[in-house]
Amino acid sequence: MVQVNENYLKLKAGYLFPEIAKRVKLYSQSNKNAEIIKLGIGDVTEPLPRACIEAMGKALDDMGTTDGFRGYGPEQGYAWLREKISEHDFISRGCQISPEEIFVSDGSKCDSSNILDILGKDNSIAVTDPVYPVYVDSNVMTGRTGDALENGTYQGLTYLAINEANNFLPELPEKKVDILYLCFPNNPTGATINKEELKKWVDYALQNKSLILFDAAYEAFIQDNDIPHSIYEIEGAKDCAIEFRSFSKNAGFTGVRCAFTVIPKNLKGLSSTNEEIELWPLWNRRQSTKFNGVSYVVQKGAEAVYSLEGKKQVRGLIDFYMENAKIMKNKLQNSGYKVYGGDNAPYIWIKVPDQMTSWDFFDFLLQKVSVVGTPGSGFGLAGEGYFRLSAFNSRSNVIDAMERIINI
Amino acid sequence: MVQVNENYLKLKAGYLFPEIAKRVKLYSQSNKNAEIIKLGIGDVTEPLPRACIEAMGKALDDMGTTDGFRGYGPEQGYAWLREKISEHDFISRGCQISPEEIFVSDGSKCDSSNILDILGKDNSIAVTDPVYPVYVDSNVMTGRTGDALENGTYQGLTYLAINEANNFLPELPEKKVDILYLCFPNNPTGATINKEELKKWVDYALQNKSLILFDAAYEAFIQDNDIPHSIYEIEGAKDCAIEFRSFSKNAGFTGVRCAFTVIPKNLKGLSSTNEEIELWPLWNRRQSTKFNGVSYVVQKGAEAVYSLEGKKQVRGLIDFYMENAKIMKNKLQNSGYKVYGGDNAPYIWIKVPDQMTSWDFFDFLLQKVSVVGTPGSGFGLAGEGYFRLSAFNSRSNVIDAMERIINI
Repeated sequence: MVQVNENYLKLKAGYLFPEIAKRVKLYSQSNKNAEIIKLGIGDVTEPLPRACIEAMGKALDDMGTTDGFRGYGPEQGYAWLREKISEHDFISRGCQISPEEIFVSDGSKCDSSNILDILGKDNSIAVTDPVYPVYVDSNVMTGRTGDALENGTYQGLTYLAINEANNFLPELPEKKVDILYLCFPNNPTGATINKEELKKWVDYALQNKSLILFDAAYEAFIQDNDIPHSIYEIEGAKDCAIEFRSFSKNAGFTGVRCAFTVIPKNLKGLSSTNEEIELWPLWNRRQSTKFNGVSYVVQKGAEAVYSLEGKKQVRGLIDFYMENAKIMKNKLQNSGYKVYGGDNAPYIWIKVPDQMTSWDFFDFLLQKVSVVGTPGSGFGLAGEGYFRLSAFNSRSNVIDAMERIINI
Repeated sequence: MVQVNENYLKLKAGYLFPEIAKRVKLYSQSNKNAEIIKLGIGDVTEPLPRACIEAMGKALDDMGTTDGFRGYGPEQGYAWLREKISEHDFISRGCQISPEEIFVSDGSKCDSSNILDILGKDNSIAVTDPVYPVYVDSNVMTGRTGDALENGTYQGLTYLAINEANNFLPELPEKKVDILYLCFPNNPTGATINKEELKKWVDYALQNKSLILFDAAYEAFIQDNDIPHSIYEIEGAKDCAIEFRSFSKNAGFTGVRCAFTVIPKNLKGLSSTNEEIELWPLWNRRQSTKFNGVSYVVQKGAEAVYSLEGKKQVRGLIDFYMENAKIMKNKLQNSGYKVYGGDNAPYIWIKVPDQMTSWDFFDFLLQKVSVVGTPGSGFGLAGEGYFRLSAFNSRSNVIDAMERIINI
């Protein structure tokens, strides 16, 4: 009989967000008039930038004509989009990333889990704690961990705590680790890393011949000039890092679907016979074989992000959400909460009141004032005692939610 | 040092189509005035159906407003699309496939390779020969085969020949096989399978508790009433088969990207402790963790395929390409070629003239009359001596190409 991949059976039943949805549903069923404000899932709420809409509309017109019609595009993405990305996101910041090193995809969630396809099974792996659950689950599903322990961690993974004690910057692993996941600006804590700190990681990776998987999905929210937007701003990173980027949070593409991954040409791994193997051809082969490129219409929308109008409109969106974050942080701080993040990221990371767990605080906010956030423990053991609020919502909802919380 | 997945190193260097592209490029460089007609890659050429364009335009307008804006959608696809698919593609043909059993994705190429994620590594696997290369390569890349042999096949895979001798219908495997890939209407041969023949496969799978991966990407081209469009038209198939479907070839979505996969709820596999495990929750977990759904705008376009206007326009596209196929088949047959396929599929499968290999014939057509097709040997050992022509092109190009070939 056909056998299943039983690594899936190691996964704990509930992904975080379905559990939240379940509790919210239960609450709303018994509180029919409650006006629930959702600051849970990090999903954008503002309309798409006008420049993107217009470019997509034009692309759609193309598709209706014989001359303009586009069938299969390059699996790696259209050259005109990859060139814009290279120029505006990298060359302009002094990072020598060529269009060829950029692979356009339908999402960073896909890329950050699919990347494991081209890597060996026996690599040792480190993630931060708390962490974006997809990094962990994709490793579990592909048999790179042992079983789940009672505390929710998985055997075989190295967890690097990020908390108040280390100012939300993980410490370098004590043992040698082959693959390191880093996400800055951080989801869920909203913490950032400066060049000096990030250099320590690049140096560690170069010294140990490790690979850094750097998730920069939130780089557009960075306000301070000394915080790097790309890991390639650090010397040597092209020899040890892959970077994931997305149009989801800057241009509001969560429902449009476009992202990209950078695989530098000189990045190498090892075969079991100690031969050095370039990762670029492996990923290129993976994408050519298992992927068929991103919708032409969507890629035209992404291209418009780099137009003069597009840039201005994206800036407007970022400013809007960051003003939300500022309002949230100020209100909560003034009300006595200990609050982190929110300065260079759209997430507010609250220390929950003493004697409460993260889920207690979740239920407390939901029951008392109909506000939904995300329990920190849902992102890992070290997230216990924290709570994430997302700045993605309308101004009036954000103000309303804060008034409700501080008036409990 | 980080280790690579060295199964990738087993892959033979060139995927078929890049090799074709290389030869065409060389030819056009030294024959600057040649008007090349491409009947190689199976990519559509006609504009998108008007109903799809309009629905996508409307969805785009939604995305520009606060009320209409959509962020993350369900990873499985929107309910309104899954309901339409269930009703029009399955219930209407007597197949009890519910919306919940349908997973919307960005392509069948992705789904037919990603499906291996949820299946064990030690399953025995059979593919037809010739075959769509993705089935084979995705197995190689995930370590389910041995090395490539000199003849281009991979150790550990069972190859089931389809050729003139068996009327392009593979024979049941002699040994027990856990996973069977079937594609009907067939790419590349254009062959079809009737209900009686398909029932033999379902019975084999039920008896051996095997899983059939049924690729029905070309079902819309079926003209004969007794040929099944879905494997679920065969009794028992819900207990042994997964089906892949696509909007690429019926509505011309190759550049738009939308497809779907059917995972019946009662379909089961085995754990190593002989426990029966349902595949549906595994795939649901895979998609929730590693995928973020298809663009809202694209799903609205796919939904329009099922409107009255959409159906009419899709029928028009199919009729157009099938008329191309008919013209090609007639012209070539009248000119003395042995020709298969083309009656219920957009592919013409030509027996190449004696003493020529598939690649000889490729070079012959390119050099003599600037027509590009696909060498049968590119699809597998048993494809040697055959040649695929695609009916996806303008009427004038098709007629022109045929005139050129028959006048050589």
